[in-house]
Amino acid sequence: MITVLAGGSGAAKFIRGLVEIMPQEELTIIGNTGDDVTVWGLHVSPDLDTVMYLLAGLLDEDRGWGITGDTFTCLRSMERYGEMTWFQLGDRDLATHIVRTRSLQQGLTLTEVTEKLCRALGVRARLLPMSDDRVETRIHTPQGTLSFQEFFVRERWASPVTGVSYEGSDRARPAPGVIEAIQSSAGIIIAPSNPITSIGPILAIADIRQALNRSVAPVIAITPIVGGRAVSGPAGKLMRACGYEVSARGVAEVYSDFVDVLIIDEQDAALAEEIERLDMRAVVAPTLMSDLTTKIDLAKRVLQHL
Amino acid sequence: MITVLAGGSGAAKFIRGLVEIMPQEELTIIGNTGDDVTVWGLHVSPDLDTVMYLLAGLLDEDRGWGITGDTFTCLRSMERYGEMTWFQLGDRDLATHIVRTRSLQQGLTLTEVTEKLCRALGVRARLLPMSDDRVETRIHTPQGTLSFQEFFVRERWASPVTGVSYEGSDRARPAPGVIEAIQSSAGIIIAPSNPITSIGPILAIADIRQALNRSVAPVIAITPIVGGRAVSGPAGKLMRACGYEVSARGVAEVYSDFVDVLIIDEQDAALAEEIERLDMRAVVAPTLMSDLTTKIDLAKRVLQHL
Repeated sequence: MITVLAGGSGAAKFIRGLVEIMPQEELTIIGNTGDDVTVWGLHVSPDLDTVMYLLAGLLDEDRGWGITGDTFTCLRSMERYGEMTWFQLGDRDLATHIVRTRSLQQGLTLTEVTEKLCRALGVRARLLPMSDDRVETRIHTPQGTLSFQEFFVRERWASPVTGVSYEGSDRARPAPGVIEAIQSSAGIIIAPSNPITSIGPILAIADIRQALNRSVAPVIAITPIVGGRAVSGPAGKLMRACGYEVSARGVAEVYSDFVDVLIIDEQDAALAEEIERLDMRAVVAPTLMSDLTTKIDLAKRVLQHL
Repeated sequence: MITVLAGGSGAAKFIRGLVEIMPQEELTIIGNTGDDVTVWGLHVSPDLDTVMYLLAGLLDEDRGWGITGDTFTCLRSMERYGEMTWFQLGDRDLATHIVRTRSLQQGLTLTEVTEKLCRALGVRARLLPMSDDRVETRIHTPQGTLSFQEFFVRERWASPVTGVSYEGSDRARPAPGVIEAIQSSAGIIIAPSNPITSIGPILAIADIRQALNRSVAPVIAITPIVGGRAVSGPAGKLMRACGYEVSARGVAEVYSDFVDVLIIDEQDAALAEEIERLDMRAVVAPTLMSDLTTKIDLAKRVLQHL
């Protein structure tokens, strides 16, 4: 069994390669819920859904979110009702949020709902939310505090950022199965997701960070920062706002207390020595996943270190 | 001002003609909510929506429900999740139910939500639910009790019917504006809707029936039974189950305590004398609304009696 800590699109690219070389059944994925958002009264879990749709063969891989070939008919009608439309929910995608919302209202936990949705879509890996309790990533800006989706989607991450916090993380317990998965895995992989807002909310739950710290099995992270820049999205901006250098070395610092191996890109080979001073191995590999072959190759390189 | 008591598709056909000959602004419509249904956790008000979509110019008039040109993409995904799909919600239509559900959860009344939806769609008539309290039409069958939509849509009204009841009607108060509309109108029209399950739930609210009874302005009903059969749907079957003759005379009996004029079809001219013994005028007219001209003609004939 292998456990992956995952955000959204970056994690989905990595997992895409991973499931080509190992059975889904041997995989547990712990997903970020810090950027869950309520849209039109519906509970949306963008990161869980991205991974779920990937595993179900439904993900629009070009866009990195939502379902391939989805339409946006309901969304256009919501516009007519003056409802928010900056968060784009497709018609097929909408079914997921309607079922999740009703199931939560009926008293199911997010873990149970996620399992139910995954089963219906034929997902064979185990997808767990990091917690059944609400943890909200808050992006602090000079103009006030935004939820992650407000910052990322609505503002297109243009706002200056003064800090990031994880509201509710002090009270949140890991979802059932999360700690057990970490403890019983042959290896734990930190996907090449945003360290601050994709992996950060998971790590903000003290029991999860502690379990990673105490893990006997190796913990391997893949840096999402290549050549001093995020491969995509606001990871660089957010790392800087949180006081980290925007580099593979900065990523190593975020994870320094629990990571055993950091996979860094060939462009960053010169940083290996410095990173190894943080008490982890630095492994140089091609990390850019431009097609299925490079995704598979990266997954193979990672599994070599288990 | 004119007030119309309305069900769904039959009422929509009549109102279609009416709004061609009078301004929407002078019209109040009191809509049936006895067949409201919860679909996927969403509050659906089929009769209110049919009238609202008609007044907004969106109604699929061929089908008699839903929005012209709507798609059913979300519905097909709900099928994959094992959710009920016998009640067909289109993708554009879905927006209405999502907004309604969230607004009700936020504490708005059904009256307020209906007004908000109508305003967004540019409806100029006033559409009022009969009540903000829940009244549920129950269809009693030898196999047990069904909601109206279970009977009508899921079972395609094939079940034998032993009776009909209106759960909650004893406690339900008329929605704000309903009694005032009846009291201040120049005339009240009972649309050619199912007397048992479209108009029946409205009449089951004692204060509404009493206001009709005491109305100084004329109350004019159009029979939905022509030649001893319902023009469409289960009106005949349900009238019989409730002990009424399936005829214009049966309709006169259902409404005998408050109707002043009953519009009956030319086919039923022979019944006029019998109907007039029930202390109302019987007016013979062509009542079948096969196209816009016949709809307008019927509306004109009705307005002549105000």
